[in-house]
Amino acid sequence: MYDRLKGFRDFYPEEMTARREVLDTVEATAGRYGFREVGTPALERTRMYVDKSGEEIVDELYTFEDKGGRDVALTPELTPTVARMVVAKGQELSKPIKWVSTRPFWRYEQVQQGRFREFYQTNVDVFGSAEPEADAEILAFAADALTNLGLSEGEFEFRVSHRDILGGLLESMAGDGGSETDVDIDVRDAIRAVDKSAKVERNEYYDLLHDAGLSYDQAREFDDLLSSQDLDALVEFAGTDRVESAVSNLRRVLDATEDFGVREHCTLSLETARGLDYYTGVVFECFDTTGEVSRAVFGGGRYDDLIESFGGQSTPAVGVALGDATLQLLCERAGAWPDEELATDYYVLTVGDTRDVAARIARDLRSRGHVVETDLSDRGFGSQLSYADTVNAETVVIVGEQDLANGEVTVKEMASGEQTTVPVDEFPGEHDEPRYGDFV
Amino acid sequence: MYDRLKGFRDFYPEEMTARREVLDTVEATAGRYGFREVGTPALERTRMYVDKSGEEIVDELYTFEDKGGRDVALTPELTPTVARMVVAKGQELSKPIKWVSTRPFWRYEQVQQGRFREFYQTNVDVFGSAEPEADAEILAFAADALTNLGLSEGEFEFRVSHRDILGGLLESMAGDGGSETDVDIDVRDAIRAVDKSAKVERNEYYDLLHDAGLSYDQAREFDDLLSSQDLDALVEFAGTDRVESAVSNLRRVLDATEDFGVREHCTLSLETARGLDYYTGVVFECFDTTGEVSRAVFGGGRYDDLIESFGGQSTPAVGVALGDATLQLLCERAGAWPDEELATDYYVLTVGDTRDVAARIARDLRSRGHVVETDLSDRGFGSQLSYADTVNAETVVIVGEQDLANGEVTVKEMASGEQTTVPVDEFPGEHDEPRYGDFV
Repeated sequence: MYDRLKGFRDFYPEEMTARREVLDTVEATAGRYGFREVGTPALERTRMYVDKSGEEIVDELYTFEDKGGRDVALTPELTPTVARMVVAKGQELSKPIKWVSTRPFWRYEQVQQGRFREFYQTNVDVFGSAEPEADAEILAFAADALTNLGLSEGEFEFRVSHRDILGGLLESMAGDGGSETDVDIDVRDAIRAVDKSAKVERNEYYDLLHDAGLSYDQAREFDDLLSSQDLDALVEFAGTDRVESAVSNLRRVLDATEDFGVREHCTLSLETARGLDYYTGVVFECFDTTGEVSRAVFGGGRYDDLIESFGGQSTPAVGVALGDATLQLLCERAGAWPDEELATDYYVLTVGDTRDVAARIARDLRSRGHVVETDLSDRGFGSQLSYADTVNAETVVIVGEQDLANGEVTVKEMASGEQTTVPVDEFPGEHDEPRYGDFV
Repeated sequence: MYDRLKGFRDFYPEEMTARREVLDTVEATAGRYGFREVGTPALERTRMYVDKSGEEIVDELYTFEDKGGRDVALTPELTPTVARMVVAKGQELSKPIKWVSTRPFWRYEQVQQGRFREFYQTNVDVFGSAEPEADAEILAFAADALTNLGLSEGEFEFRVSHRDILGGLLESMAGDGGSETDVDIDVRDAIRAVDKSAKVERNEYYDLLHDAGLSYDQAREFDDLLSSQDLDALVEFAGTDRVESAVSNLRRVLDATEDFGVREHCTLSLETARGLDYYTGVVFECFDTTGEVSRAVFGGGRYDDLIESFGGQSTPAVGVALGDATLQLLCERAGAWPDEELATDYYVLTVGDTRDVAARIARDLRSRGHVVETDLSDRGFGSQLSYADTVNAETVVIVGEQDLANGEVTVKEMASGEQTTVPVDEFPGEHDEPRYGDFV
């Protein structure tokens, strides 16, 4: 009668069990690096995105006017929100600020495999350090998270690039406006073209670069330069301090990844650009090395200017956002997606009027930390046992009127089907985790 | 430069630490009862609420038209969504279905203490059982959650009522239309008046009942009947099977709460009605017994008709929703709100060019499950130590160039300030949790 909206997902318990396990692993990994959880609103003022995130994201915004006449948007990403939060507290926060959170975001996109209108991201950010160690820690966290999820070295790679190498190179190509061969390049558009380069034909890529102001010769030269992955050649070609310093920064980050134990996952890949406008330094994307997951699994990078542009003190920043859908594709491809099975420690089964004793036993088992279900539907033996099986109960405690008359309950191990009677006063008694084997 | 929206909240790490601890306790409690986590969308079709939830909630909806022309709403509550999910899977789901989830909801309300436009709820529901054990388990879960949070018996009470007692009583007052004294009563409006009765003056309450169709004499009589809490008198007054059966159901639920160990938290309170229209049976609200938290902390009840009205098979249901803001007020009042402090197991401090060793030690400690931070900002000894103090590091491992030349690092216990040197090859070595005390 009511349908779910397209691009939105319902997660039933089995699927959610697996998702929760993955999420717990990712968040525990972030926690061990000292990233601290923050909580953030689902709605923000629309203009926060219009100003900073780039037109692509704005086209996809869920925006509306609230009952108070405010132009608001469902948050399409976390970065502007945490930037706002850093600005709001100003100098109160001790640096580096290391934050993590997992929550849904919304974009009105074309729905396809691994892409939904409501998606979940774990965002991990460091604010207040411009040093390469911060970039390296973000990469190390991301690699650790994947490794802890069960992925092996060689199953994923981080393609690492640097926004200011791209920007500096484009600046050099444009010239300083003092020569007749100078051209007018829209750097944002050109970088967006680079971001699309792997997804389009070469000619289309050149057209996009041409639209951004490059001549076709320049577009080919630019493409050759990037695909050479030759940093020295880039520095020489550009001949500017800007490119030299960007290359040096990229090299220092790669050096730091060596010490941080993540260098082996990193590949230099200058065609990696990221779609969002606010990146300033190192950017990277995670890919499935088998290529079976064809798009980037997730990505991140450095955005040193965003907080100042939000009215805060100059605060360098770097982060990564792991999206749920592509991460699931990668895990499934690698056979690392968890089993989707419910777990139940005990089912306490009632036969006849034994609710008081069954409820007491359920309480005692729960107080020992176990997952315990009992009859809520006044059902018979068979259908209770069948339900216990459905929820994968490990042990069934049968509380029957006749057994109780003898002061006993029956403990049944579901895997083997074996069972034995136990004095009701001794169940659970001294046992932290009473099982069939404890009573035979 | 950009401001947060009114009624929305940013949670910084210290506050979030406490919130997460509370949430973990509530969810772990639900988990031990075998409630299974589900994940649900933030947007639904607007008409799902217009049809079923009552006008109050609809006035407060964040609604808009999406880019595909759909009328959508930010979910103001979970119940319609989980009802939709139960209908969608139909007979596939084995009963009883026991679900839990925690997530934000949105209502455009007047912002005040304990009430925000974005708020978080843990929803716990049982679908597929009409038996009193299901109601009792919901109450038992709620009491357990509060007890596990550190509240004591007597610090909170569940005021328990029954919608069909109210409905049946009003039906009896209206008469069957065959007599001149019969009146036309809008039962929904009258029940909403009962829901407001504790918050308004008596005269205003009678006005509301009068607006719903009762005469002023009937309003007073109705009020007297409810406040007497005399179930036998109610049955006698109404003289209908409907009220008799509702009273009998309420008594059976209260009996079940006895076995489920939650009877001592329950008070019969017929003036408790709950605001939402879809309730059909037992309803309850949790109150701070000191009265310091003046409004209901949370509430729940039985809604046996909702799923059928959504086009599903007749599926009785009962649930509770714990809201974050009032729960925090109650916990704070009772001194049970957790300390808001960051915890860090180790800070690995670098002096000079020791990044490779420091990073190796940090990795080794993290792989043992500890929370470990290290320098990301190329800072000196003093400012690193001060940062370690800010994040409450328990142990600082100082990796200095000079110490390293002797093959040693220094282990410093922050609480006492005591420190000792340790061979770098033995740190962490065999130790799962190496501390100062292990090396002296």
